[in-house]
Amino acid sequence: MTVSLNTRLCRRFGLTAPIVSAPMAMASGGRLAAAVSGAGGLGFIGGGYGADAEWVDAQFAAAGNVAVGCGFITWALAEREARAPGLYDSVLQRKPAAMFLSFGDLSGFAEAAKAADVPVFAQVQSVEGAREALAAGAEVIVAQGSEAGGHGAARGTMTLVPEVVDLVGERAIVLAAGGIADGRGLAAALMLGAEGVVMGTRFWASEEALVAEGFQAAALAADGDATLRSSLPDIARGLDWPRPYTIRTLGNEWTDHWRDVPGGPRDAEARAAYGKAVAAGDAQGAPAIAGEAVGLIRRVEPAADIVARVMREAQEALGR
Amino acid sequence: MTVSLNTRLCRRFGLTAPIVSAPMAMASGGRLAAAVSGAGGLGFIGGGYGADAEWVDAQFAAAGNVAVGCGFITWALAEREARAPGLYDSVLQRKPAAMFLSFGDLSGFAEAAKAADVPVFAQVQSVEGAREALAAGAEVIVAQGSEAGGHGAARGTMTLVPEVVDLVGERAIVLAAGGIADGRGLAAALMLGAEGVVMGTRFWASEEALVAEGFQAAALAADGDATLRSSLPDIARGLDWPRPYTIRTLGNEWTDHWRDVPGGPRDAEARAAYGKAVAAGDAQGAPAIAGEAVGLIRRVEPAADIVARVMREAQEALGR
Ligand SMILES: Cc1cc2nc3c(=O)[nH]c(=O)nc-3n(C[C@H](O)[C@H](O)[C@H](O)COP(=O)(O)O)c2cc1C
Ligand SMILES: Cc1cc2nc3c(=O)[nH]c(=O)nc-3n(C[C@H](O)[C@H](O)[C@H](O)COP(=O)(O)O)c2cc1C
Repeated sequence: MTVSLNTRLCRRFGLTAPIVSAPMAMASGGRLAAAVSGAGGLGFIGGGYGADAEWVDAQFAAAGNVAVGCGFITWALAEREARAPGLYDSVLQRKPAAMFLSFGDLSGFAEAAKAADVPVFAQVQSVEGAREALAAGAEVIVAQGSEAGGHGAARGTMTLVPEVVDLVGERAIVLAAGGIADGRGLAAALMLGAEGVVMGTRFWASEEALVAEGFQAAALAADGDATLRSSLPDIARGLDWPRPYTIRTLGNEWTDHWRDVPGGPRDAEARAAYGKAVAAGDAQGAPAIAGEAVGLIRRVEPAADIVARVMREAQEALGR
Repeated sequence: MTVSLNTRLCRRFGLTAPIVSAPMAMASGGRLAAAVSGAGGLGFIGGGYGADAEWVDAQFAAAGNVAVGCGFITWALAEREARAPGLYDSVLQRKPAAMFLSFGDLSGFAEAAKAADVPVFAQVQSVEGAREALAAGAEVIVAQGSEAGGHGAARGTMTLVPEVVDLVGERAIVLAAGGIADGRGLAAALMLGAEGVVMGTRFWASEEALVAEGFQAAALAADGDATLRSSLPDIARGLDWPRPYTIRTLGNEWTDHWRDVPGGPRDAEARAAYGKAVAAGDAQGAPAIAGEAVGLIRRVEPAADIVARVMREAQEALGR
């Protein structure tokens, strides 16, 4: 039996695979995004905090003529635009395939995207967040469960997705994110009513991702029990993340140590050591930013192979 | 297209629906368990902490001739058997359809069940727990995600289920628990590789459940954002739950208040007030014990109707 995975997401964005690669800050570059779009999915550049306009430029250049999107962390982008306006509009002027906004009030940015005719993906962590995304006019709502790598919140993918689907109805396209790394996850997400998936950790462990090998190796060696949510890396980086967001990383010697230290890694020495470990790809000196899905990932692979295999596996699972 | 949901679980236990009702302490009585088994699933009596042997007797009587199982909280049962041995063996002698063991070292209890020819379900919250359950000889391993109502731990259903499936292979039957309340959830669980589901919160909101109406009404009115994991109810009840378990309840005035009080509701007055609220079905004075799936539940229904509808919905989802 051949199972069609041609969802509303595919029809709207001209995809052959309902698979989106997450805009992972500094890890999702233009090469990864283009590889995912080239394989029939939709790839995003991870503009992150919007701190580095040149990096974003370079990533669009690396994507070449392939249609890709770009993502930002909304609260940080708002601070940047208040200080030094311009980055967001300059990205809109490139006519990305879509803008991907997460973590904070997106309404102003969504309006500007609409005016520029760029579709908006809004990533949300709660039913309340989905309501806000709808009100802001998001065309695609990504329901992100707590399993996810990187920043997120408390609700699990298994309940958040169908509940957001019930809320949204035909008003937007709902995608599932958080803990999806293989065809079983894609098939499950479709059963929950999603029109596709956003995968982060799986593409973080791809050949094209801008991730140090030491971190990828630590993630491949870990099972899914090995991750945790905390604020430790944000404290070490001096990033003032608002509630209720925490960041999921692997546990390691560093998280074991700092979990029990009141206030966390705030002092200059701790911060410097953290920065050095990140730069060196030292997976004990800083934790790999990855989700529970590490337990489902066995190899670093080319992104196009990941898209093809996830599709094949999902079709097998659905055809049974 | 007709989709068969005849899984290994169904064949092993003679079921027509791969749906298990959880052994919810004091809430899953014999009537609920028998209604689920009578509808083609498998129902469990919630023996809980093993504190009340007479209650367990009465529930088996209420189940009548219908084959049902019984569940216990392993660490609490071990303490009880050390103090006053006998309950566990007396339940085994009734030849329940299965014994359902969660939260703690099950090896001794699993051995005794095997000797009595009673199959063991082991509920686990991690890959590590699944390894222990396999070593203890469990025939069925329930992978319980953090979305679940009642006690549980940190991992999400979406990743824990396929990872446990990969670990276990043909050595045991894997079920999914945590956040499943409708046919979409059942279909998703099957896609993840599970052979069926354990539902708690959905059956807690059934006509047969031994739950005060005030608590059920609060759950029906809530969306899935409204729950949280904490230790507050355990502190108020003087229950010494081991790490890493916490209990998921609705948030209410009581949890809002006590979350910010160091030490929590420990004093005699707080405990008495909590006990009174539980007895009165006062959903602000004590929180309803329920999971994120409350956001997917709209009505209190007869358990047999729930089984039939979940099956129908799953077949629809899988047939699309
Ligand atoms: C290394 C890493 C960095 C991330 N950075 C961002 C980000 O900058 N902006 C964002 O919206 N999401 C970010 N995310 C979260 C993803 O958008 C997505 O929700 C998540 O990866 C999905 O769960 P998964 O990791 O289990 O696939 C990041 C995830 C990872 C693993
Ligand atoms: C009110 C309530 C009481 C529970 N009591 C127990 C218990 O005594 N023993 C046990 O193993 N699990 C208990 N659970 C957890 C269930 O076994 C199951 O894992 C959970 O209900 C599944 O998630 P769901 O609530 O989202 O369906 C309880 C759950 C609820 C909602």
